[in-house]
Amino acid sequence: MTTAAPLPSLAAALPGSDLVTDPDVLASLSCDDAEWAPAGRPVAALRARSTAEVRAAVAACADLGVAVVPRGAGTGLSGGANATEGCLVLDLSRMDRVLEIDEENLVAVVQPGVVNNDLKAAVAEHGLWYPPDPASAPWSTIGGNVATNAGGLCCLKYGVTRDYVLGLEAVVGGPAGAYGTAVRLGRRTTKGVSGYDLAGLFVGSEGTLGVVTEVTLRLLPAPRGVPGTVVGAFDSLVAAGRAVALCTRRGLRPAALELLDRACLQAVEEWKHLGIGAEADALLLARLDAPGPAGDEEAEAVAAAFRDAGAHWAERSTDAVEAEALFEARRLAYPALERLGPVLTEDVCVPRSAVPAMLARTEEIAARHGVRIATIAHAGDGNLHPLLITPPGDGRARAAAQSAFEELLVEAVALGGTVTGEHGVGLLKRGGMRRELGPEVCAMQEALKRSLDPLGLFNPGKVVGDPAAGAPA
Amino acid sequence: MTTAAPLPSLAAALPGSDLVTDPDVLASLSCDDAEWAPAGRPVAALRARSTAEVRAAVAACADLGVAVVPRGAGTGLSGGANATEGCLVLDLSRMDRVLEIDEENLVAVVQPGVVNNDLKAAVAEHGLWYPPDPASAPWSTIGGNVATNAGGLCCLKYGVTRDYVLGLEAVVGGPAGAYGTAVRLGRRTTKGVSGYDLAGLFVGSEGTLGVVTEVTLRLLPAPRGVPGTVVGAFDSLVAAGRAVALCTRRGLRPAALELLDRACLQAVEEWKHLGIGAEADALLLARLDAPGPAGDEEAEAVAAAFRDAGAHWAERSTDAVEAEALFEARRLAYPALERLGPVLTEDVCVPRSAVPAMLARTEEIAARHGVRIATIAHAGDGNLHPLLITPPGDGRARAAAQSAFEELLVEAVALGGTVTGEHGVGLLKRGGMRRELGPEVCAMQEALKRSLDPLGLFNPGKVVGDPAAGAPA
Repeated sequence: MTTAAPLPSLAAALPGSDLVTDPDVLASLSCDDAEWAPAGRPVAALRARSTAEVRAAVAACADLGVAVVPRGAGTGLSGGANATEGCLVLDLSRMDRVLEIDEENLVAVVQPGVVNNDLKAAVAEHGLWYPPDPASAPWSTIGGNVATNAGGLCCLKYGVTRDYVLGLEAVVGGPAGAYGTAVRLGRRTTKGVSGYDLAGLFVGSEGTLGVVTEVTLRLLPAPRGVPGTVVGAFDSLVAAGRAVALCTRRGLRPAALELLDRACLQAVEEWKHLGIGAEADALLLARLDAPGPAGDEEAEAVAAAFRDAGAHWAERSTDAVEAEALFEARRLAYPALERLGPVLTEDVCVPRSAVPAMLARTEEIAARHGVRIATIAHAGDGNLHPLLITPPGDGRARAAAQSAFEELLVEAVALGGTVTGEHGVGLLKRGGMRRELGPEVCAMQEALKRSLDPLGLFNPGKVVGDPAAGAPA
Repeated sequence: MTTAAPLPSLAAALPGSDLVTDPDVLASLSCDDAEWAPAGRPVAALRARSTAEVRAAVAACADLGVAVVPRGAGTGLSGGANATEGCLVLDLSRMDRVLEIDEENLVAVVQPGVVNNDLKAAVAEHGLWYPPDPASAPWSTIGGNVATNAGGLCCLKYGVTRDYVLGLEAVVGGPAGAYGTAVRLGRRTTKGVSGYDLAGLFVGSEGTLGVVTEVTLRLLPAPRGVPGTVVGAFDSLVAAGRAVALCTRRGLRPAALELLDRACLQAVEEWKHLGIGAEADALLLARLDAPGPAGDEEAEAVAAAFRDAGAHWAERSTDAVEAEALFEARRLAYPALERLGPVLTEDVCVPRSAVPAMLARTEEIAARHGVRIATIAHAGDGNLHPLLITPPGDGRARAAAQSAFEELLVEAVALGGTVTGEHGVGLLKRGGMRRELGPEVCAMQEALKRSLDPLGLFNPGKVVGDPAAGAPA
């Protein structure tokens, strides 16, 4: 991929489109929320409004040898939406229409720029539910959720974005014909095995195989009744991890099972004054949504498991306002910690039985590198988000955080885990991914990328890129 | 792919393996249960006992230019396991060990030859459940289930094989290095987005991308309590289809919602004398497994929906033996019909709201072509199995059935559906798949196949093969 095309050539090739060239706006569209991930300078950005406009842009970029970097709300945490040098940033956030809600088939068809919570609200009016709920749901788009296969709180019981994507429209190139061809992948039916699962392959591919311009999603009937909440306070992270393992072993299936450590609780309390107790070393929050008496039984069983694992208290919250405040604290933990300085976000996922060990190693790595690490976790999934917080402008602290970051990746893989549970590889996890998968599987990944994008036009350098490269050209 | 390698070369290259060459045994290993799908004559078969033996066989076949056709129990219905001319059939049914059941992480690791029901029984001893339940579960293997992304009765609520495959070991070639390389794809954790979803891509790929030699599966806690059964009898197939649509629209979530028509009921009754009433034109069977009173409420709601849609009776079965007999009848429908003559099996899947229309068009096509069609269906999924039954040895009836078969595929696609919900493309659905996906998406499929299997060694001609070809070489 060369990046020599001057802006006038691109503008001439896209007469119907307004290209963004203002340096400040371009800079704001050049990176996501990943701390310290390298970003190049785009030649321009295009705020696409239709599939036709995306098709024209991709075709023009292919002709001119300009890379295409798609983006939604830019809430990613791995650098997957960061601009490459000389690229066209394709901002899809204005393709934000819910095109169809099909009550008879429990299906929604949406443009990629629809915000997750807006979709939830739209389908709720029809008595339906779109479960995936990343903490970024108030801001992040379905297109971005698809690009990273976003998870969230309720995926413990209800699965991740992948489990709700039936079909896609994507603008692709390579074997499908000229770059700029729009294809429909997947299906609209509940089941289907007609050919390789290309729709599934595009989910989590971070815009490296094409530009997703429409998504067909599976919905569920809206849940009935009010879910119960159980809170447990623990004197150590490791004890909380043991409680998670015990819930799994006892066959309990909470809809969410979240962990916050003291640093997270304090940061949220200092910012928002929600009145949550921040004196425990670790808090576990469980949400139980089995209907009727079964839900009550399950809530009691979870509280008992918390106590048996050593909680100094564990109670079912009978106050809906209090319960909501606790989950709100969970959602606010990340922005609350960001107020304290640059945050480098881990997203390791380990087998559930290894959660206590991973938490112990995290504490040990934090102490050894002298790095402040706060941990929030989808603990029931084994998906941990140690957050490495550095004082602004402190180069030495930054270097220590980056060393600790890589070491956490190594530990997660050593425990049988993965370097990324739901945030994606982007730029930050490329080295970790290579160590996790090994050279043979990485070679298969690269062969797939080449087969569907022989020009290397789509989001080059991400996922399968060389981790030694900085801002990829 | 040439197929000229003589048997002695293959035997010399595999000194530790017993090659099957007896013509009768070879013939029995040369096809699956797909009626009239073409099959070639293999040069030999190998009943592999280890990954090492599979690796050696694949490497030898690559050297000699011999195609590799993997197979399990041979219960497939699309010809995906049929031999190609001069191939080595790689029978994996003796790699049948459950390697690990991990209660702490709800994971099982199995060899591909483990029979589905055997796995269910093994994990049940640990209080765990492996949900996917194709009607072939007493015979079909997990490897075959993975190859076709098998569904079944309970996937309405619990998903298909794909939803339970976390990771795979596969013997591959191409970009991973020399043919015969074993790689681990996917993960063991509940979530993970480290690179493209290769494990997901292999599920449903019918052995065309490599040979799966180990599968890591997600399990659920065993269900508690006894599920309820609701039976509804209808005066027409279309009325039963309307009842299915009504259940969906009312937000009901049965664990299974199955349809049998009169022909199926009679064939089972004549064979097994289960004492089921075979006088209705269509029977719907619903299984409800919500725990406690919620399950009772749901059962009543399903019975009400059946009545509102025009059932001439609909009752909750209070007799567990009777309920089991009804589901047993569902499972026996296919073998019961096979007793009557060669059965050509459809596997179309349409949006749920289109079930009544698809059933009506099926009846119309049967009448127009003079073909006897019995229908069983995972109706709640929109996945219909019209079974085309012909008198043995009647060439004219066979031609009519084949015409009706293709016409049913066309109608399913016209209704927004797919040509295969859970049986796979194999040989029989290649033409239908091409019409469904269109040339651009088929070109992407072929590019993927070439990128991971540049020699065209693995199960050539299946899925992405030329539908005009007979027994592929």
